[in-house]
Amino acid sequence: MFKKDVYSSRRYLLQKNISSGIVVLLGNTESPINFEHNTYPFRQDSTFLYYVGIASPKLALIIDIEEDKTILFGNEMTIDDIVWMGRLETLQEKAQMADVDQVLPFGELSSYIDRAKSSQRNIHFLPPYQSHNKILLEELLHISFQQLLPSTELIKAVVAQRSIKEDIEIAEIEKAIHISAEMHLLAMQMARPGMKEYEIVNAIQGLAAANNCPLAYAPIVTVHGEILHNAYRQNTLTSGDLVLNDSGAETPLGYAGDLTRTFPVDLSFTDRQREMYNIVLSSFTDARDMLRPGIKFKDVHLRAATSLVEGLVAIGLMKGNPQEAVANHAHTMFFQCGLGHMMGLDVHDMEDLGEQFVGYTADEPKDTKTFGLKSLRLGKALEPGNVLTVEPGIYIIPELIDRWKAEKKNADFINYDKLEEYRNFGGIRIEDDFLITGDGYRLLGPELIKTVQEIENYRANYA
Amino acid sequence: MFKKDVYSSRRYLLQKNISSGIVVLLGNTESPINFEHNTYPFRQDSTFLYYVGIASPKLALIIDIEEDKTILFGNEMTIDDIVWMGRLETLQEKAQMADVDQVLPFGELSSYIDRAKSSQRNIHFLPPYQSHNKILLEELLHISFQQLLPSTELIKAVVAQRSIKEDIEIAEIEKAIHISAEMHLLAMQMARPGMKEYEIVNAIQGLAAANNCPLAYAPIVTVHGEILHNAYRQNTLTSGDLVLNDSGAETPLGYAGDLTRTFPVDLSFTDRQREMYNIVLSSFTDARDMLRPGIKFKDVHLRAATSLVEGLVAIGLMKGNPQEAVANHAHTMFFQCGLGHMMGLDVHDMEDLGEQFVGYTADEPKDTKTFGLKSLRLGKALEPGNVLTVEPGIYIIPELIDRWKAEKKNADFINYDKLEEYRNFGGIRIEDDFLITGDGYRLLGPELIKTVQEIENYRANYA
Repeated sequence: MFKKDVYSSRRYLLQKNISSGIVVLLGNTESPINFEHNTYPFRQDSTFLYYVGIASPKLALIIDIEEDKTILFGNEMTIDDIVWMGRLETLQEKAQMADVDQVLPFGELSSYIDRAKSSQRNIHFLPPYQSHNKILLEELLHISFQQLLPSTELIKAVVAQRSIKEDIEIAEIEKAIHISAEMHLLAMQMARPGMKEYEIVNAIQGLAAANNCPLAYAPIVTVHGEILHNAYRQNTLTSGDLVLNDSGAETPLGYAGDLTRTFPVDLSFTDRQREMYNIVLSSFTDARDMLRPGIKFKDVHLRAATSLVEGLVAIGLMKGNPQEAVANHAHTMFFQCGLGHMMGLDVHDMEDLGEQFVGYTADEPKDTKTFGLKSLRLGKALEPGNVLTVEPGIYIIPELIDRWKAEKKNADFINYDKLEEYRNFGGIRIEDDFLITGDGYRLLGPELIKTVQEIENYRANYA
Repeated sequence: MFKKDVYSSRRYLLQKNISSGIVVLLGNTESPINFEHNTYPFRQDSTFLYYVGIASPKLALIIDIEEDKTILFGNEMTIDDIVWMGRLETLQEKAQMADVDQVLPFGELSSYIDRAKSSQRNIHFLPPYQSHNKILLEELLHISFQQLLPSTELIKAVVAQRSIKEDIEIAEIEKAIHISAEMHLLAMQMARPGMKEYEIVNAIQGLAAANNCPLAYAPIVTVHGEILHNAYRQNTLTSGDLVLNDSGAETPLGYAGDLTRTFPVDLSFTDRQREMYNIVLSSFTDARDMLRPGIKFKDVHLRAATSLVEGLVAIGLMKGNPQEAVANHAHTMFFQCGLGHMMGLDVHDMEDLGEQFVGYTADEPKDTKTFGLKSLRLGKALEPGNVLTVEPGIYIIPELIDRWKAEKKNADFINYDKLEEYRNFGGIRIEDDFLITGDGYRLLGPELIKTVQEIENYRANYA
């Protein structure tokens, strides 16, 4: 945990931004794997971590706005608990570390909320994502799921606060990125033809674990980088393949790193791979150089897309005017997703609170329909203190070629004949994490090798 | 997956044991970590695996008894799914591998159940443990959680079937145990003073992963073996400590191994450790030698307890008549838990279906009150084909000493003065997995070193 005044200061700020009533923050519960008591590693809810910092299951916090009071609800251990789980810090001790005013048994949460409800007070809660907490909210509020209405006022206040990272948070994020960068170097050291994808996953997971860090998300380590969220890890690395490695560590306090590098299974890129890689790298550089307060991330995304099209036109895979191609979404044949997202206590920071609130504004809401833009998690103007990823890519998806080609979709911009030659090319992504500063941006973590030359030199050292 | 007739044969047998109506088996859904789309590694429900074998999320199976028909409910991939997750086998292809008659979209599950309900047919379902499936059942059956009444007929039929392992299942379980045994040898090779507990966890997890196996449960690897379910892994291995390692692998088809070994951080046991270890080993041997069809596992448990008391009396930690001591539950100062449990597709096999059904009978129900016995998961007479663990232990829990001593509890049987000298001794457990055969038992997996001499010799080889 951070020092206790970190948590009380954060709660103080939140309290100022909520007009009236009680704020109910639910912690997470352990999730069963195949029966109730065989559970996945526990991960506390990120907003609960942000305001309370206690990473134990079955807790809830109430911030009572009018009474200016913070109460932690949870149960102390019984002798049976001690026999099975050992003596841990008491809840009272933990509450002190979070500077909380009062501790009450979890069972009293319900009556506290009942009293607030019967006094017609506002009850603010966030959108639940754990099914356990959906049921709990239903029980606490005596309404059905369909009627559950999370508090927009609370969501906005939390998003406003968590979007601007404190210095201690940036330091934690950089710790996560440092370990993530080591994971990427290890992958580049060890990858050899004949190896299975999961061998690399195991090694980088081991490296994170040796630093006492879990992974921030299921790593994507694959020779089929064109599959955006590839969880399959049984493929064999074969000469001529590219390996796409999208992975990051999470610090013990819960902060994420998120990096992607793509490199050849062989010691050097083929000419075609080098050409495509450099198109993605130019797009990355063009996008990164635009980062500054006030710029809309949607514009950065569209610039990255235009940059990709320029490169694809140069090698004959696309044709026509790049701006026009992007306006017609023709680039989404190659770049189907968004350029990046906020990062912090979640790898997609605050995704549970709703992308509309985290990444967009009421005036310029998220486009939830258009292929491509509907996957852009962040569109609004950037502010100093934002931490985000930049991650352009080229993904050649055979099923998408077949579908668009049959429809003659964007035939003015896509050279389908030439594209057929690239049908099994795979995918490339390059991703780093950035802080928006007062006048621009700062790369977070170390400079991790990125150019063709750097990667080839590094791989040669470990041949 | 096994061959398709494995699944149709199992379902045929189940169908014969259900009088009427429809059987609804819900598969598992992915569990979110910190937001909806950041999920833990998916694990299919074990009963669903047993009867269907398809390890994908968001599926349900209906076995219609009267219509003699099996329908799989699930959704085929959209083009968006293919972009994000790649082209996988279609649901139709998977259904064929499971020999299922028909595939319908998941959305039609609800109307199928509605029709059965309006015809007053029985709707059999199992107790849900995933909160997601609690909500789903509530929606499907149009009733609240409080009214959800799992089918005792279905539970009994599933338990009867899954309790008797098929040969192909035993072969899978032995695969899991072989890898588990390698994990234990690795731990004994590498443990050194100064090492952190989690370094061993990382190494054995890596070994399982290199065999393409996850772990069957969160491993307990600790110098505080007296804490029965110790999830804390930050302790440093110190000269004079014992390391308790309770860990097992799970095969890709979902079968578990579950082994425990305890060994010194130093190259040899201290005299006191050797003495205590041999008491546990005798208890283990006495219990194991009783395994045969027809014997009640509760009697094996009590024999193991008596054996522990005999040893503890011999070294002066207990006193009086061992049988009397056990009748008075005095052994639970040292052995607070049960001797073992069924094992198969779950490490605690079928625990989600209820211990009363899995481990007990209506005539001799589970004792849910008495400290010690309330933690015994298996009490009933054994049958050929049962697979179970035998895992006696001695655990010195300071808080329990203090509490009992203050109450003068079992002072006729416990030598509290002497026990104070052992206050920080820790814990020892020895665990292997067994198959009940026609006339006795068979150790599953390899003979993993177990005696003091074997362990000391092995450790010396890796010094």
